[in-house]
Amino acid sequence: MSACLCLVFLFFSIVAEATYSPGGFHHLSSLRLKKKVSKSKHELPFETRYFPQNLDHFSFTPDSYKVFHQKYLINNRFWRKGGPIFVYTGNEGDIDWFASNTGFMLDIAPKFRALLVFIEHRFYGESTPFGKKSHKSAETLGYLNSQQALADYAILIRSLKQNLSSEASPVVVFGGSYGGMLAAWFRLKYPHITIGALASSAPILHFDNIVPLTSFYDAISQDFKDASINCFKVIKRSWEELEAVSTMKNGLQELSKKFRTCKGLHSQYSARDWLSGAFVYTAMVNYPTAANFMAPLPGYPVEQMCKIIDGFPRGSSNLDRAFGAASLYYNYSGSEKCFEMEQQTDDHGLDGWQYQACTEMVMPMSCSNQSMLPPYENDSEAFQEQCMTRYGVKPRPHWITTEFGGMRIETVLKRFGSNIIFSNGMQDPWSRGGVLKNISSSIVALVTKKGAHHADLRAATKDDPEWLKEQRRQEVAIIEKWISEYYRDLREEQ
Amino acid sequence: MSACLCLVFLFFSIVAEATYSPGGFHHLSSLRLKKKVSKSKHELPFETRYFPQNLDHFSFTPDSYKVFHQKYLINNRFWRKGGPIFVYTGNEGDIDWFASNTGFMLDIAPKFRALLVFIEHRFYGESTPFGKKSHKSAETLGYLNSQQALADYAILIRSLKQNLSSEASPVVVFGGSYGGMLAAWFRLKYPHITIGALASSAPILHFDNIVPLTSFYDAISQDFKDASINCFKVIKRSWEELEAVSTMKNGLQELSKKFRTCKGLHSQYSARDWLSGAFVYTAMVNYPTAANFMAPLPGYPVEQMCKIIDGFPRGSSNLDRAFGAASLYYNYSGSEKCFEMEQQTDDHGLDGWQYQACTEMVMPMSCSNQSMLPPYENDSEAFQEQCMTRYGVKPRPHWITTEFGGMRIETVLKRFGSNIIFSNGMQDPWSRGGVLKNISSSIVALVTKKGAHHADLRAATKDDPEWLKEQRRQEVAIIEKWISEYYRDLREEQ
Repeated sequence: MSACLCLVFLFFSIVAEATYSPGGFHHLSSLRLKKKVSKSKHELPFETRYFPQNLDHFSFTPDSYKVFHQKYLINNRFWRKGGPIFVYTGNEGDIDWFASNTGFMLDIAPKFRALLVFIEHRFYGESTPFGKKSHKSAETLGYLNSQQALADYAILIRSLKQNLSSEASPVVVFGGSYGGMLAAWFRLKYPHITIGALASSAPILHFDNIVPLTSFYDAISQDFKDASINCFKVIKRSWEELEAVSTMKNGLQELSKKFRTCKGLHSQYSARDWLSGAFVYTAMVNYPTAANFMAPLPGYPVEQMCKIIDGFPRGSSNLDRAFGAASLYYNYSGSEKCFEMEQQTDDHGLDGWQYQACTEMVMPMSCSNQSMLPPYENDSEAFQEQCMTRYGVKPRPHWITTEFGGMRIETVLKRFGSNIIFSNGMQDPWSRGGVLKNISSSIVALVTKKGAHHADLRAATKDDPEWLKEQRRQEVAIIEKWISEYYRDLREEQ
Repeated sequence: MSACLCLVFLFFSIVAEATYSPGGFHHLSSLRLKKKVSKSKHELPFETRYFPQNLDHFSFTPDSYKVFHQKYLINNRFWRKGGPIFVYTGNEGDIDWFASNTGFMLDIAPKFRALLVFIEHRFYGESTPFGKKSHKSAETLGYLNSQQALADYAILIRSLKQNLSSEASPVVVFGGSYGGMLAAWFRLKYPHITIGALASSAPILHFDNIVPLTSFYDAISQDFKDASINCFKVIKRSWEELEAVSTMKNGLQELSKKFRTCKGLHSQYSARDWLSGAFVYTAMVNYPTAANFMAPLPGYPVEQMCKIIDGFPRGSSNLDRAFGAASLYYNYSGSEKCFEMEQQTDDHGLDGWQYQACTEMVMPMSCSNQSMLPPYENDSEAFQEQCMTRYGVKPRPHWITTEFGGMRIETVLKRFGSNIIFSNGMQDPWSRGGVLKNISSSIVALVTKKGAHHADLRAATKDDPEWLKEQRRQEVAIIEKWISEYYRDLREEQ
């Protein structure tokens, strides 16, 4: 269970950042402070290693030569020399989290006799170039970005293959969420290092207004509508009730009582963020297996929330119903005596992601008043000010699409590139920023009507629904094709 | 004529750097100081503009946001809105030099109704981020490299299209020599910005031992052998005569007299470098039109040199013959009264290139004792020491192949990428580091048995030989295909 929470936690870091605007920031930021991280290191069948990396691959100033140690995990149990190497391109957090939540790679390694490598993203986990001071200032954080991370991966992989005397091994990269974006971009930028990428739930089109700003929250609303129109309406109406309660005399006190907070609330927004966070997360993990965060409960989490809402006694308030649904998420074990809604904790992973969102990973969003969640407008100027205040940096909102593309992606990649799988589950609100149609014969989209945020990368369980098994079977078949094609090319070369 | 000298000068900067090893450094470095640069700005049919660029695209430190002004040239005489944009990806020097030596783009612009843009490479010409201090230290020079340059081009092109309200215009990139490498890499890394690249004489395989270290000098030797076996032998034997003369009593004085130097020689190596430089250059420009540096003389320059050598009176020394041939290069007008062999001048362009060769553009070479030129071994350690002494930097000899690939390029690009022309003339010694075979249906090699260092990019002249005309015709036909394919895709999108 703890392993599941980690990823929920991580997913949320993206949500929080993607909505890092006056509305969005307040809207979602409290939730991310709630969950505790459990690393369960002892369970992981990997050896931990460290690789010396240059701080800056794209300049040659004296500072750029500073060396830090990048953590990676390796499992060679199934591998034979010359065989494939499967690399996870780590995203915004401790690499152990991703290793323990990407069981798919372990599941398929024996079949491919593959070496498994999970590489930690710079500035996360233990891979901090300036130790504890890494996140202290704009000077140190300045080297945290996706291009440097991709270059780290390229250098590490090349060196590893050389050390293993297995330079002809084909490398396939895997990643989910931001890690999926990195996997896809890695194939596009480093085709000489990797033969193909499985990019799961990678919202590479969530930049620069390529997809509508409202798409993320629209998708969540749709998930709840699909489960129950009434449920959607109840949640949508709960916000004004929340507002009404909290602005009454002693309203916050009343609200604290109603929401069973451990300490008295200082702001209604904490409660609003706490509530809406529950719905956002639940949409993201909306698939019915033990690998979702509501492990002990069978079925689809969104449906379960709606059952709770719809099952309240006639006459119950919308706010009480919404709170009841959110409690399923925050207290599915039933053991929480009270809820921490304003607890201030810090985590390097999240701090790093917020910094990335303030520099390159600018994913503007808004929430329309047709949505189930509290509406807000995207405000680039306010966002820019917040970034300057918080990190001393100015966002570069067009940089990702300049560096990696995204605009008119079908036309660009139809005649360029190959061997990328973009997998998405349409229940996941991030899917709206993903590639949802085949682009060419080898840049393909595997889309499931159901399916949550990179569910396909989770370890298989006996409860997995058929559509998930089928998605994974297709992924394996495509990867097999890449690898056999590669070995054929290799034989022809010689 | 002056325009021709500029490029010779530039070519040489590569030669000098490629041989920046104990042998190579002494071997060739004096020559580059010889030629004067003439900008002939007034002749260029371009408007000069400046574009604000961030100093560092790959970090977000406070320093990275420093803005400098990048120079570019533009000609919109033939363009109609929506039409193609032809961009020259500037290499190591003042962009005016490249504009005045890339007449091919001007020649074909009317046919394509193309906008022409020549972008200056950062740290060259006027595009110096720290003004006159740009080349002063490792701190300032640190931001000079090819990846930053490519990102500059991507940002500038995108902004330009937006300002022209012509965002759907197809962009084709052109470049010769290092500029050709940049053009090819730009297509590989930024396929969303450019639809195709003409990379002329781009030695992208001259890194990390992909091609044999001796190939450059072997090619020069072959050029001379093809013209005359005797000529080859004379030059090959002249080095020991040079050594013998200069080590005699008053030998350097004797040598200064023999070589008609303006000032007394301090080292025999200056004379050796001066001589060998003449042969290297002449091989690079070995094609018979007014666009080569020996404009006033008809025919192939290598043949002419060999005619001089072979035509000396019986009994003449090898050294005298070699000097006679070199004089054709240094004094084809017959007006030079003496030769400057040890003159110390400086030029930012060359200084910049030497720095690049000491960081990323590490092109190791050696000269075998089968070669016509003085043999030397590649010595990586000595090279590294020199770079540390001179610039305070440590070379990253594997970086270019990690970042841009090159190893097993046929296999990698056979299933990845499209729309690149690699053009090469086999007389050019740099061709040995180029792509000489078709890789796929749209990544093609146009190789001519004759042909010199990016001769195809020069303006057409009435004297152009048929093979050169044919090579250019093929280039135009391929570019036409890219553009019509693009417009077809665009129509289908809508």
